[in-house]
Amino acid sequence: MASTSSPAFSQALLSRPSLPSTVAPTNQSSLSSLSLPSFPRIKLSPLPSSAAHRRRITSPARTSVRASATVETLGSTAETALVEKSINTIRFLAIDAVEKANSGHPGLPMGCAPMGHILYDEVMRYNPKNPYWFNRDRFVLSAGHGCMLQYALLHLAGYDSVREEDLKEFRQWESRTPGHPENFETRGVEVTTGPLGQGIANAVGLALAEKHLAARFNKPDSEIVDHYTYVILGDGCQMEGIANEACSLAGHWGLGKLIALYDDNHISIDGDTEIAFTESVDTRFEGLGWHVIWVKNGNTGYDEIRAAIKEAKAVKDKPTLIKVTTTIGYGSPNKANSYSVHGSALGAKEVDATRQNLGWPYEPFHVPEDVKKHWSRHIPDGASLEAEWNAKFAEYENKYREEAAELKSIIKGELPAGWEKALPTYTPESAADATRNLSQQCLNALAKVLPGLLGGSADLASSNMTLLKMFGDFQKNTPEERNVRFGVREHGMGAICNGIALHSTGLIPYCATFFVFTDYMRAAMRISALSEAGVIYVMTHDSIGLGEDGPTHQPIEHLASFRAMPNILMFRPADGNETAGAYKVAVLNRKRPSVLALSRQKLPQLPGTSIDGVAKGGYTISDNSSGNKPDVILVGTGSELEIAAKAADELRKEGKKVRVVSFVSWELFDEQSEEYKESVLPAAVTARVSIEAGSTFGWDKIVGSGGKAIGIDRFGASAPAGKIYKEFGITAEAVIAAAKELSS
Amino acid sequence: MASTSSPAFSQALLSRPSLPSTVAPTNQSSLSSLSLPSFPRIKLSPLPSSAAHRRRITSPARTSVRASATVETLGSTAETALVEKSINTIRFLAIDAVEKANSGHPGLPMGCAPMGHILYDEVMRYNPKNPYWFNRDRFVLSAGHGCMLQYALLHLAGYDSVREEDLKEFRQWESRTPGHPENFETRGVEVTTGPLGQGIANAVGLALAEKHLAARFNKPDSEIVDHYTYVILGDGCQMEGIANEACSLAGHWGLGKLIALYDDNHISIDGDTEIAFTESVDTRFEGLGWHVIWVKNGNTGYDEIRAAIKEAKAVKDKPTLIKVTTTIGYGSPNKANSYSVHGSALGAKEVDATRQNLGWPYEPFHVPEDVKKHWSRHIPDGASLEAEWNAKFAEYENKYREEAAELKSIIKGELPAGWEKALPTYTPESAADATRNLSQQCLNALAKVLPGLLGGSADLASSNMTLLKMFGDFQKNTPEERNVRFGVREHGMGAICNGIALHSTGLIPYCATFFVFTDYMRAAMRISALSEAGVIYVMTHDSIGLGEDGPTHQPIEHLASFRAMPNILMFRPADGNETAGAYKVAVLNRKRPSVLALSRQKLPQLPGTSIDGVAKGGYTISDNSSGNKPDVILVGTGSELEIAAKAADELRKEGKKVRVVSFVSWELFDEQSEEYKESVLPAAVTARVSIEAGSTFGWDKIVGSGGKAIGIDRFGASAPAGKIYKEFGITAEAVIAAAKELSS
Repeated sequence: MASTSSPAFSQALLSRPSLPSTVAPTNQSSLSSLSLPSFPRIKLSPLPSSAAHRRRITSPARTSVRASATVETLGSTAETALVEKSINTIRFLAIDAVEKANSGHPGLPMGCAPMGHILYDEVMRYNPKNPYWFNRDRFVLSAGHGCMLQYALLHLAGYDSVREEDLKEFRQWESRTPGHPENFETRGVEVTTGPLGQGIANAVGLALAEKHLAARFNKPDSEIVDHYTYVILGDGCQMEGIANEACSLAGHWGLGKLIALYDDNHISIDGDTEIAFTESVDTRFEGLGWHVIWVKNGNTGYDEIRAAIKEAKAVKDKPTLIKVTTTIGYGSPNKANSYSVHGSALGAKEVDATRQNLGWPYEPFHVPEDVKKHWSRHIPDGASLEAEWNAKFAEYENKYREEAAELKSIIKGELPAGWEKALPTYTPESAADATRNLSQQCLNALAKVLPGLLGGSADLASSNMTLLKMFGDFQKNTPEERNVRFGVREHGMGAICNGIALHSTGLIPYCATFFVFTDYMRAAMRISALSEAGVIYVMTHDSIGLGEDGPTHQPIEHLASFRAMPNILMFRPADGNETAGAYKVAVLNRKRPSVLALSRQKLPQLPGTSIDGVAKGGYTISDNSSGNKPDVILVGTGSELEIAAKAADELRKEGKKVRVVSFVSWELFDEQSEEYKESVLPAAVTARVSIEAGSTFGWDKIVGSGGKAIGIDRFGASAPAGKIYKEFGITAEAVIAAAKELSS
Repeated sequence: MASTSSPAFSQALLSRPSLPSTVAPTNQSSLSSLSLPSFPRIKLSPLPSSAAHRRRITSPARTSVRASATVETLGSTAETALVEKSINTIRFLAIDAVEKANSGHPGLPMGCAPMGHILYDEVMRYNPKNPYWFNRDRFVLSAGHGCMLQYALLHLAGYDSVREEDLKEFRQWESRTPGHPENFETRGVEVTTGPLGQGIANAVGLALAEKHLAARFNKPDSEIVDHYTYVILGDGCQMEGIANEACSLAGHWGLGKLIALYDDNHISIDGDTEIAFTESVDTRFEGLGWHVIWVKNGNTGYDEIRAAIKEAKAVKDKPTLIKVTTTIGYGSPNKANSYSVHGSALGAKEVDATRQNLGWPYEPFHVPEDVKKHWSRHIPDGASLEAEWNAKFAEYENKYREEAAELKSIIKGELPAGWEKALPTYTPESAADATRNLSQQCLNALAKVLPGLLGGSADLASSNMTLLKMFGDFQKNTPEERNVRFGVREHGMGAICNGIALHSTGLIPYCATFFVFTDYMRAAMRISALSEAGVIYVMTHDSIGLGEDGPTHQPIEHLASFRAMPNILMFRPADGNETAGAYKVAVLNRKRPSVLALSRQKLPQLPGTSIDGVAKGGYTISDNSSGNKPDVILVGTGSELEIAAKAADELRKEGKKVRVVSFVSWELFDEQSEEYKESVLPAAVTARVSIEAGSTFGWDKIVGSGGKAIGIDRFGASAPAGKIYKEFGITAEAVIAAAKELSS
């Protein structure tokens, strides 16, 4: 849109949000002047960030673009009409798909169609035929329930993932247009949203990744990494604590290429936001260190939206929140601006009324020819954008061979040959140590060979032992570094890591806190599992073994809660070799997140443990029986494997044939062959005792009806760890007693 | 402290935070002038809220009390010296206890001792000999790791729960001074804190409860409900999203009697907050609608702190955040203002240096006589406060018999006789309905008979069906109403409900969202279970049965994750009678929270279900066998019990003896006698098939090694519910096939 707008249009800038008059079919010839995406030539000068900062601390920094009189009137009516027609196409694709499915959320797409059109048709750089082109601008629909907006935009832009038949299959079995945006179902969708607040936090991760890679790989003569991250979020996202956590970090890190458009429509499911959400979002974001712009007419103020995005791009040292005031369900004469249009189909009658009102004579799912033609340029344009970048990269590769190779490996997600050899190994003679410390040895070893490894802790780096010693802190002015300081923001941390993981397949984010505080970030961890983001969760202080901090800090049910979650690997390594083995599997699983539960207390290096054993999930570490017929099988995990081994020694002294099995990852064991499982847990041997300092819930699966599970089915206590173990009966004596009872 | 301070002291007001000079033993005689807690006579006029509001929107509203020249210099050196001595007593009790335990967090108590002293010695109204006196001011240490501050204060104030020997047992097995504040261990502790951000959200709940009860029961001639809620929170709490959620609501509700002191010490575990926390907290809280005050010298600026609290109490229409800038580990010459003093003992050498530096000649745990004597007045004073209130209540009771009786029942937590008769019952002829709708019938029936029932939803009231039709919305100007609008803030909602439940035993808070979003609030739910807060969690859309919204919204592992959690009741009712039964148990369990997983879809009223059956957790709803020897036992929960019943009908037609068992609450079944369990699940019958639209994790316990669990061990899908059930094999056909296989 080299030039848009008109006298009539410029007047619209001064009018309050209102329903547009019926639009006449557009003059086709006017389209010939269309060129590559660019911005309307407007005088509005970018806000100097220093001024922005000064304003922020002296008075609210809301710059109302609408109020600006400096916006020129541009372009021809025809083109503005075409923009309006394109926007209405988006609205009706959403209306029609929701109507056909009789399920979905038409309100947001109808209200956000203008900003959606401007982003995908005028602003964003992408290649529809290669949704994975590395240097594309990222878009996140944090208000995921409005997914028909994104599907409509992907469809118009020419993505193969959303054809007309896909739109007609909205929310149906195995369609590529599910009820919320899912990156694993629909090419062109970057992350999985729907649970509110996750998307904006993912976007912070995407923008962090861009800033980090740009700092590492860009050269004075070649900005090889250079894209923006755009978000549309709603009132619901704004209310969620995770959004505040992530946005506080975005402000702290100065993520200038993160631009969030806030759909300020004053309606949530329960009605007007007045009933529960009366804070000043603008003021809060100023406090968080963001640049804030208010577009007062998000319904028809196209130039306001354009100018706001231009201003946002000009502010390089801060993320920008553009508050775009819109009308939910815009165009629906009877349901607009009410909760009734938020989450259900308009109904045939209101759909007709809306067609009347917006002057839309077309049948359902119809895209007018001129709109089709207008959008068709994105396929060639996108191809050229990628071709230009490829040429640029070839040049870069010639000049900076090493950097290019490293960047390529991050883009392609290829692990360097023999990387796993970097992992430390241990012998029973190696010093006893806490698995949290052994974890740090693994992380630091891996950092040397994995260019995409980066991460950190939620203000517990010195307890979680997650610092990469060869690197400094990722900060506003040192974004090339790899130690990320998340502060006490577990939920935001998890969702930011999802964004990092989904930015480039070669980025391997890890994050850390106390295991019990996975309760703060569980929603983000579930989305790691669902959206195939291979985040590594380094969770220390994994049991009553942490001692004095007491029950608020002692996990009990957490191992079980993750063993029950699909597509996530729950590891509880017992020593150095098992910790290394857990990292090996975690790094290899780029589409499945891993949780490592690690001890605060020292543990011995046990005979029989191995990296290869971990890959099988459960394996025998010692056995004095033969013919796969032990008298009793003792099963342990993590810090209790040592107790099982001690108990076995005692029992063997008494002549028992005892097998000790480490059950470091239940999921991996489930994936083994029946033969292998039988070789570890022979069906004939029902005398089985398990010991784990956590809930016994689920252990019946391993020990069977004839076995006994020793664990903790109450909350913990505040005392020295040894005392709690003794009082709770997590002891070799208890194992021995149970083993004798079962095998006598 | 009718009058304190001195010329020397007044100068301290103008000095930067600094270590005090050694303090000489205090002149005892000066204590004779001590009277009831009151405020220093200072001219500083309370800030008119309108002015505060004007300031908030035109410029940051930080009023620096320190900057005010109007603070008079008050009192005598002797009394200021005594205050200082009391403050140092608090510091050293914390230092000595942490040192003895060689575990704990001395930094916060050392820095917050001044505000702690002023709150407990000068400001708060409480009765040490009755920690449960209804009208007491509430105090929450949201930065729970600093619990030695609270233990020291409770000790000085004369609470029997924290005697000298208890301080010496800090963090030891079965002591009353655990590693974090636990209301169920230590009388005088209101809520359980430690997991950051929970405490400030609990405090919002406590303040909500006060505002609600005051609005319902106060009369123009009798303010029978009238107390403040004070909080100390730190940087960690401020970073947590839950705190922003709860504080946004506190501002929305205008909780004027909530006063939060923010320990602004710039240090978190990983070091200076500069590395991860550079937002303007003041500006954010102004955006949240709070009154904000900055006390620049929290170390020695006692009058600043006093004046700030006075100003905060004068602002009636908004909660107040007092940012108190302090030095963590104040007094420690080598460790103050560093992370090293945050979470570990000072060490003998530094303890000595600190004794030197603060002029503390006493042995560990010593409370100087004059300090003891000074604090001793709180026992008689507290007794008189309660006696005065009792007299006031007697008068109130004479004038307002009905209201007094209702308030009494809320204070004492006595359920009205026969309340359970209000619960609806159903017959197989009753209309099929979704359990979320049946839940609403129960809630509305209970609201008529339970004066303490109040609650709401996280912006899903119309989906969760939680509105109480006989009441309006709890809002700033209608606080007497009982429908609470939490907005999209699940985590804050849960923690606020914990605060409501722990305010008065007769308050029964419920809160609601989609079951899958318990992931957002799990940390708060765990604290409900740990701290014995009988919150009722109304969780609808409990399976793939919700259909089109897809996997982000479909719970899979959630039932298992709560069955593994201690001290929480997980219910999955199948129809109307079971929903009523779940509510009956939930209401009776005031010290154990309940989670009700409820369907979005219609379910039939099944023959054999009953309120009494639910109380047993698992029970037989139909059986055509005799002698406790069925051929096969079919077990189902919630929406799948219908499927089990259908399968049984088919199998019986083919001559099978089939028992159908509803397993609505595993926890309750576990509590039944072995005889009863055997009568439901006879050991001899190993042919058992379970069906539940969720993870099979844990079901081996019920069906045994010889049984089969039908469930879903993958993520869900976006499609109409019936289609997903069929595709995932959650069908009667699957149950029949499995039953035949096992019982043939």
